[in-house]
Amino acid sequence: MRIDIQFLPVPPDPLALSRKTVVVIDVLRATSVIVHATSQGVLEIIPVATVEEAFEKAKDFPPGSTLLGGERGSKKIEGFDLGNSPREYIAEKVRGKRLILTTTNGTKAFHSVSSGKKVIAGSFFNIGAITKVCLDMNQNVLLYPSGDGGRFSLEDTICGGMLIDRIVKTEGDSIALTDAAHSAHILYQRFEANLIDVFYASIHGRDLVAKGFEADLAYCAQVDIIDIVPTFRDGVIRSR
Amino acid sequence: MRIDIQFLPVPPDPLALSRKTVVVIDVLRATSVIVHATSQGVLEIIPVATVEEAFEKAKDFPPGSTLLGGERGSKKIEGFDLGNSPREYIAEKVRGKRLILTTTNGTKAFHSVSSGKKVIAGSFFNIGAITKVCLDMNQNVLLYPSGDGGRFSLEDTICGGMLIDRIVKTEGDSIALTDAAHSAHILYQRFEANLIDVFYASIHGRDLVAKGFEADLAYCAQVDIIDIVPTFRDGVIRSR
Repeated sequence: MRIDIQFLPVPPDPLALSRKTVVVIDVLRATSVIVHATSQGVLEIIPVATVEEAFEKAKDFPPGSTLLGGERGSKKIEGFDLGNSPREYIAEKVRGKRLILTTTNGTKAFHSVSSGKKVIAGSFFNIGAITKVCLDMNQNVLLYPSGDGGRFSLEDTICGGMLIDRIVKTEGDSIALTDAAHSAHILYQRFEANLIDVFYASIHGRDLVAKGFEADLAYCAQVDIIDIVPTFRDGVIRSR
Repeated sequence: MRIDIQFLPVPPDPLALSRKTVVVIDVLRATSVIVHATSQGVLEIIPVATVEEAFEKAKDFPPGSTLLGGERGSKKIEGFDLGNSPREYIAEKVRGKRLILTTTNGTKAFHSVSSGKKVIAGSFFNIGAITKVCLDMNQNVLLYPSGDGGRFSLEDTICGGMLIDRIVKTEGDSIALTDAAHSAHILYQRFEANLIDVFYASIHGRDLVAKGFEADLAYCAQVDIIDIVPTFRDGVIRSR
């Protein structure tokens, strides 16, 4: 098995993806929202690129069946039901509902890698569960951090590095790492003793603090609290 | 001053470059060749993208005035005078000559960032000299590793991380680092005690060993042996 991580969110060659497990990572906060909402019983999640697309898509479904969630500039979008804090996505609000989600980076990322053999959402919440899926699939893995406005994201890379660490510790030397995956592993080791430090070190993490979302950092730094692997297929994310 | 490093060789926005110092890095081996050849008295270096372009360009100059150098698949190109080992580029061969150079990654990189305010070639050889130029220019810096066939290059990133380390140690907290630059700095710290280890850890370094170029690794790991900053301007690299 070979693990790669793509450090900039440039859409990969679809053909190369067709035999890979792809893990989309946007720890702050889209994939944390997706994993959390799924664990709280959301029916399905439709990631869309734009706010306009979200409003249009909602018209396809009966009134009351669908929630609009996401952010622009980290803040809840006018006319939407929910923002982009995982803590908002609790069973009382989301159980049995369809969620149409649009965020700056994360929701676009799923469409960029849609031709992956299996496309799953990763976060610190479900790191053990995604490790198991990657091992069970037994094919090459591409970690796809969704980035920060097209730029490299430190916190997503550390989450990817943690997944690499788990896989390498299970499988040992049979795992081949690209230079990028090797680097993500080293970067993870720098932060593993106190994971939340990476959020305060990252530009996006500090921006969330400045905008009043500091509580999301501690929340998103929780490891292995959810044993679910949201899977993207035919434009929709479901619990398997 | 703000330092960024671009982890994948995707051509940056030309407008954003126009007020930046850009450091092109291809330690194994194009920028090591460029720095070394310049120190040995080469007249000028013309980096070109293709082998065909190299032969065409040579016709513009009087016979005997120009050398063809570079590699494909790490090996010397048929009909060329020199390969891509810095050790080949000695005064006896290159002094006063024009060098037309084409390599898989490095020579293309210069053209991708040609709109930079100042575009210079960096390697371990001249790390102190490029540090000084970056500080003297006193404007934002983009480090541009030329990558490995479009992929992330560990050894170029470590060289970039060393430059960041030098600048931060000189200027302290007044230097702003992007998440990527911060990561390159951490990665450098992992290898600083024994720099050559990074060449044996990197995929391209191991490939050079397999192809018989192991001696180039120790050669290219030499730090601060050349006090020259080759500068790319109007399609040509010169000693200043």
